[in-house]
Amino acid sequence: MTQKSRKQTKKETADQDEVVTFHYDKVKDFSTWFTEINKSAELSDQRYGVKGLVVFRSWTTVTLKIMYRLLEEELERYGHLPFIFPALVPESNLVKEAQHVEGFSPEVFWCTRAGADTIFEEPLALRPTSESAMYPLYSLWIRSWRDLPFKRYQSVAIWRYDTKMTRPFLRGREFYWIEAHNVFATVEEAEAQVLEDLEITKTFVEGDLAMPVIVLKRPQWDKFPGAVYTVAAESLLPNGRFIQNGTTHMLGENFARAYDVKYVDENEQEQYANQTCFGPGISRMYGAMIIMHGDNDGLILPFVLAPVQVVIIPIPKKGLKEVVIERCRKLEAQLRKAGLRVHFDNTERRPGDKYYHWEMRGVPLRLEIGNREVQDNTVTIFRRDIRTRETVPDKKLVKKVKETGKFVTDELRKRAQAHFDGAIQDANSFEEICEIMESQKVARINFCTLEMEGLACAEKIKDATGADIRGTKLGEQEKPWGLCPLCDKPGTVVAYVGKQY
Amino acid sequence: MTQKSRKQTKKETADQDEVVTFHYDKVKDFSTWFTEINKSAELSDQRYGVKGLVVFRSWTTVTLKIMYRLLEEELERYGHLPFIFPALVPESNLVKEAQHVEGFSPEVFWCTRAGADTIFEEPLALRPTSESAMYPLYSLWIRSWRDLPFKRYQSVAIWRYDTKMTRPFLRGREFYWIEAHNVFATVEEAEAQVLEDLEITKTFVEGDLAMPVIVLKRPQWDKFPGAVYTVAAESLLPNGRFIQNGTTHMLGENFARAYDVKYVDENEQEQYANQTCFGPGISRMYGAMIIMHGDNDGLILPFVLAPVQVVIIPIPKKGLKEVVIERCRKLEAQLRKAGLRVHFDNTERRPGDKYYHWEMRGVPLRLEIGNREVQDNTVTIFRRDIRTRETVPDKKLVKKVKETGKFVTDELRKRAQAHFDGAIQDANSFEEICEIMESQKVARINFCTLEMEGLACAEKIKDATGADIRGTKLGEQEKPWGLCPLCDKPGTVVAYVGKQY
Repeated sequence: MTQKSRKQTKKETADQDEVVTFHYDKVKDFSTWFTEINKSAELSDQRYGVKGLVVFRSWTTVTLKIMYRLLEEELERYGHLPFIFPALVPESNLVKEAQHVEGFSPEVFWCTRAGADTIFEEPLALRPTSESAMYPLYSLWIRSWRDLPFKRYQSVAIWRYDTKMTRPFLRGREFYWIEAHNVFATVEEAEAQVLEDLEITKTFVEGDLAMPVIVLKRPQWDKFPGAVYTVAAESLLPNGRFIQNGTTHMLGENFARAYDVKYVDENEQEQYANQTCFGPGISRMYGAMIIMHGDNDGLILPFVLAPVQVVIIPIPKKGLKEVVIERCRKLEAQLRKAGLRVHFDNTERRPGDKYYHWEMRGVPLRLEIGNREVQDNTVTIFRRDIRTRETVPDKKLVKKVKETGKFVTDELRKRAQAHFDGAIQDANSFEEICEIMESQKVARINFCTLEMEGLACAEKIKDATGADIRGTKLGEQEKPWGLCPLCDKPGTVVAYVGKQY
Repeated sequence: MTQKSRKQTKKETADQDEVVTFHYDKVKDFSTWFTEINKSAELSDQRYGVKGLVVFRSWTTVTLKIMYRLLEEELERYGHLPFIFPALVPESNLVKEAQHVEGFSPEVFWCTRAGADTIFEEPLALRPTSESAMYPLYSLWIRSWRDLPFKRYQSVAIWRYDTKMTRPFLRGREFYWIEAHNVFATVEEAEAQVLEDLEITKTFVEGDLAMPVIVLKRPQWDKFPGAVYTVAAESLLPNGRFIQNGTTHMLGENFARAYDVKYVDENEQEQYANQTCFGPGISRMYGAMIIMHGDNDGLILPFVLAPVQVVIIPIPKKGLKEVVIERCRKLEAQLRKAGLRVHFDNTERRPGDKYYHWEMRGVPLRLEIGNREVQDNTVTIFRRDIRTRETVPDKKLVKKVKETGKFVTDELRKRAQAHFDGAIQDANSFEEICEIMESQKVARINFCTLEMEGLACAEKIKDATGADIRGTKLGEQEKPWGLCPLCDKPGTVVAYVGKQY
């Protein structure tokens, strides 16, 4: 096994099928980089013609489907079952929980008529989230302590009329998520579910998506409308912005009282149920993952998520074409049989153009098969993440590919972790907070309180920097070391301050 | 291996968790049977509160997901890639193809406003089907003959404001389907795609769903709005009604001209593309499958579609409880390891109640494990379809379960085929057509023409019987043997007449 440095040819002139235009700097000009990677790697199309609605192209959709499958399997392993509720929710359902309707009303798409002349007596909301659709039926289904715990999820699109700037995947008016809605007899069980949800999110995001996760309990002013409290599993993008991978809401009895979700306990007493809901955003996590791992040559995809995990490129010279092609086909069959997603690029384009095409799309591994590889019974494996080559005996191919694929994901995780660790800085004054925000990092501060009384301090930061109090670390109980730099009251919590998508 | 007749105990009184109420006659009172099976087997819930919108419960959803996976894999095997378009379609897109908008306008749900006070300048349709959403972007994506064929699908919900009577799965206002939208250079390739779609449907429906399929080319008056022609893969329910599993539409250049989908051919000439679209209805097929195979004890599910393929019921007597439970756990682990969906029902209910519960839900195989099975190292397998038991050495368990599971599906297919074959009867007069419709069967008749001139004859049948001319067999070119019994003109085609869902 030798490390080689075969000359990289990706910036060669492309043939007429391939427009070679990608040379954007992710760090210096993130916004352009993200717009252009969406076009060049064919991730989404923003020309659909309605603000905030984009088309998810095939390269994206294959990965979204893999993400759905992995996370659904995980939820089912933890005892959830799938179901599907209608997308249209009667207005009268939505208004039952006062804070909930107040929170979501400004964002609801309303369906008001059908056909040529049917006006609905009651408008129907396009689900912005499904508590108000589901819980009236939970009230019918749940009767006794024997029906609990009741753990269900659905994988659906939701619609929110977001008036902020939209961006593919990160912030749009239609997005894809999973929503799990669970019911328990006791507060303790519900609290345990909140932790379980976060564990599921962490395992999935840190494992498969290779993104570090910080779990924050949100301030009271930033909780889910109607919830007792909200916790979020967040990642930190290279531009210093938080992205919420998923949130879990402790609903307590709030919704149970509004929607009459009760059960008869073991002593024949009627009780309100305790509820939680959990909403991992699949399309949003995808966007975060693209941004987290991509570089100036395009995407880099974690191995388990790549639509094509291994691309095979033939590099035949001097009359050995058929032998090389034959060899590539054999390798393709061998890898496919081993359960890998493999693509043999046998088009007429030049190898350099093929390299470029598949690097742009983030294919983790490339097999380069030329005359030398055929003669030596070897395979040259190129790693997209660190751009190195290794030549291995072809007998070891499958094992080596699986192992190297895992190394790619590990390397991506390591890089993201390094960025994450370097991004969090303690601040002891308002000026320091502003400086840290200016430098696209996250500030860790002493803060007066995450109860409603702290909102005024949070608003001072927001007004000056556009950043939010994202919350306090769940579980760890970090100890404040001084006064709140906004109001000079003693810090009761350590809070994290950052901008968000 | 011996056939045994252990006494069936399913109609014993149930414990308080289990309400034993199912005793409806599917043949004599289909409508009640279907309503009650929806409740008792927890398939759907009609108490959602909006006409035509039902909740798909977990037992249904697990199977829908399996169906999606199987059919998507098949589509991908034939070169389709997934993508996702927004659910909201601007009105101006929809009106571009004149027949299309005329056909769908009466059924569109319109989204007209958002939040408290935003009225949309242009109303947005909830996708009733996605031609008008997709083809404007096809027009941008497809440039050259090198981009063709272009084969894509999405798996989504659609909404149609159907004013007829709604029924769970069969006819509703929100349903789940796959829609594949393909583009070709030539008419011939598009025609070949129509046949490929039908082949995919037949393989899936006849194989996995165990329902015979007849492929009919629809009359011109019953084609998809905007299409050149429409073909349908239909099954025939026990009550004599046709159910459309999926339709494929030959669009020719009609939509390409409306949405400007063009390509430059190999001679540098600009050409309109030829298109097809294909819409297998997942939730509708599920409903058909439930109805086709169920009996008066509940559902019977084909083996590959059952959420639980094998249920294990312990029947311990006289102090051997722990040994029996231990044995059940071992068998469960063994079957799970073999990739089977297995459930060990270790609740406190009596065996008879468990039998009833899982038979109602259509679990194909049940393992009964009692003292005798433990002592003899055997397993007793009960088949839901023919209600027989077989005792096998436990060493052969996995092989035997897989084989018996296949036998269940085969038996269901055989029964459905026998019904199908017996349901089609030749009719030579208007009276005979009426009699056949009366007896809940399908009439095979000579018919004047499926072009628009034949509509008057079709309407005579519709007025008298409520039945439709469903079309003529695709490919087979059946030879008419006489005059059209409606207008006495010579029959140019053999047409099938039946009622539909």
